[in-house]
Amino acid sequence: MFSDQDFDYMRRALALAQRAMFTTTPNPRVGCVIVQDGRVIGEGFTQPAGQDHAEVQAMKDARVRGESVRGATAYVTLEPCSHYGRTPPCAKGLIEAGVKRVIAAMEDPNPLVAGRGLGMLRDAGIDVRCGLLENEAREMNIGFIARMTRGTPWVRMKVAASLDGKTALHNGVSQWLTGPAARADGHAWRARACAILTGIGTVREDDPSLTVRDVETTRQPLRIVVDSRLDIAPTAKVLAGGNALVVCANGDADRIARLRDLGVDVLDLPNPDGKVELPALLRALGERQFNEIHVEAGYKLNGSLLREGCVDELLTYFAPSIVGDAQGMFNLPALTSLDDKLALTFTDVRMIETDLRVMARVTRD
Amino acid sequence: MFSDQDFDYMRRALALAQRAMFTTTPNPRVGCVIVQDGRVIGEGFTQPAGQDHAEVQAMKDARVRGESVRGATAYVTLEPCSHYGRTPPCAKGLIEAGVKRVIAAMEDPNPLVAGRGLGMLRDAGIDVRCGLLENEAREMNIGFIARMTRGTPWVRMKVAASLDGKTALHNGVSQWLTGPAARADGHAWRARACAILTGIGTVREDDPSLTVRDVETTRQPLRIVVDSRLDIAPTAKVLAGGNALVVCANGDADRIARLRDLGVDVLDLPNPDGKVELPALLRALGERQFNEIHVEAGYKLNGSLLREGCVDELLTYFAPSIVGDAQGMFNLPALTSLDDKLALTFTDVRMIETDLRVMARVTRD
Repeated sequence: MFSDQDFDYMRRALALAQRAMFTTTPNPRVGCVIVQDGRVIGEGFTQPAGQDHAEVQAMKDARVRGESVRGATAYVTLEPCSHYGRTPPCAKGLIEAGVKRVIAAMEDPNPLVAGRGLGMLRDAGIDVRCGLLENEAREMNIGFIARMTRGTPWVRMKVAASLDGKTALHNGVSQWLTGPAARADGHAWRARACAILTGIGTVREDDPSLTVRDVETTRQPLRIVVDSRLDIAPTAKVLAGGNALVVCANGDADRIARLRDLGVDVLDLPNPDGKVELPALLRALGERQFNEIHVEAGYKLNGSLLREGCVDELLTYFAPSIVGDAQGMFNLPALTSLDDKLALTFTDVRMIETDLRVMARVTRD
Repeated sequence: MFSDQDFDYMRRALALAQRAMFTTTPNPRVGCVIVQDGRVIGEGFTQPAGQDHAEVQAMKDARVRGESVRGATAYVTLEPCSHYGRTPPCAKGLIEAGVKRVIAAMEDPNPLVAGRGLGMLRDAGIDVRCGLLENEAREMNIGFIARMTRGTPWVRMKVAASLDGKTALHNGVSQWLTGPAARADGHAWRARACAILTGIGTVREDDPSLTVRDVETTRQPLRIVVDSRLDIAPTAKVLAGGNALVVCANGDADRIARLRDLGVDVLDLPNPDGKVELPALLRALGERQFNEIHVEAGYKLNGSLLREGCVDELLTYFAPSIVGDAQGMFNLPALTSLDDKLALTFTDVRMIETDLRVMARVTRD
């Protein structure tokens, strides 16, 4: 159904989409390659929200090169959109430009619109195929897909530990367990997230800024602090310059007002135990069009998120060391049967210089 | 210095040595390939102790094939021996057979004899080269090398844990955390060891037989139980059929006698705290010509072995699961500074079906 050339061009389109990894939120990262007579005549990827989608960029690129896309084939990593949003529908643009063939990696994940863009193309007489390198395309927009299909973001929890699963000493010392390459890798995962989530414990102990520093990006994710009692100090680095959201439970009105005066957003989402209702927080973030949430928290909030079914993926870094009696990775209660363990699937294992990175997904029943 | 063909033949010799992995103790695993005019005319590997070494096997193989080794090249994964032990020196055999060239992967690790076999060959006018695929050859006999160079065996500690480093529930439940492929892999590591070491805690809780079952072997390693107070029940599976050693500290004479009546060996190696002096145990095992010790113990003995500097390598299997509050991997005291952590180097990381296997070595100063 697909030729070797089709695979090559779609891989190129995926590589282009990769370049949009840090900047397109809330839109998906999409790449587009336009091919005429075996030559690439235009390339593009999604620009920041409100600006051009990948298909439009690729058509503009062809025009700049003095090429005509009439009769060409467009390879696109996601079904072209069919609706007027902040930009006109890409399907319409491809039809008007006279492309002859469109190959898409996957349909739009929104079940309400899936297939409409491809249908619009087919109705215009264009040869349309879908499903080339679909898995790779899905991985690239796993958060967008999560939000479109279930209304909540994809939650990826980062943990750095020793080989024996220890994240901090009992005296609180925790930093620099893994090496600089692993930390830079962690920053790349921060950079692609819409928001970085932590807890008041981590803010109090480490006072992190939770900004992206080790990789280049033009966008900083929102910093979110789960802080039931609104204990956060106004001087906490995570609040510096705004771009922060504090989530409390029955928060004191004066404290809320003071934070808002600092330009910090506040959400009050209590559960019956007087803690933050974490699933409600995810729903609220979904409504705000957040695709991927990157968690960098301590073992308490990590445990709560896991217990409440709020984690999709673990991003774990293991340092080549043994620490012994110390803080573990997740605060979870003792089981009476191993049948009750949380089942995972390992999805990626690799060395990051001298550290080991293990990615795993929570197995859903 | 070495040609592509040389590499190919040495790789073949290493593959032959691999076939001797479970059976040669206390001798090293050695492979030999004899090549005449670009043709392999003889192959061999070390037979069980007291029987033929690899070189003799390869020369016999050539004879059976009706080939003459006169003027041939011998590839051997370890320097041919120069002394009369249970068998005559292989260097002498190669000289008498008239081989023209010998390529060895590494010198004899015993510093007292290293180079003598190669010297004997050189003195006889044979073209001798050494060091081809030396790292691979060293890995194959890492325990033999440890014993020859420092007098104690190589100690490899196996641990199976969840991703959060938990090995057992607080109620003692521990079995079947990892899958069948990981367990079979663990049995292959048991099979290559001279002895399998455990503690009385594991014997009491799990009553393991500690035999090799999931891989084929003609030799069962010695089972060793560290049991300071000689609490072991005579009915423990680990003692069944003898081939077991119990190590105590100031053991009761009657209990020692009873175990010996069962055909079980007993060593009494107390340290000043009334526990087994683990480094002394390793020295005793070195004197008994044990090359590799495979540890499958609980978190207490694991911790003691690590604390007392008795571990060279960790063989860890991580199951795709999170267990939470439960028994950890190693009973080690809390640190006050991360500078005091035990430093490791990851040497091999791979998936074993759905489990993750991580091998790491203790970094020596």
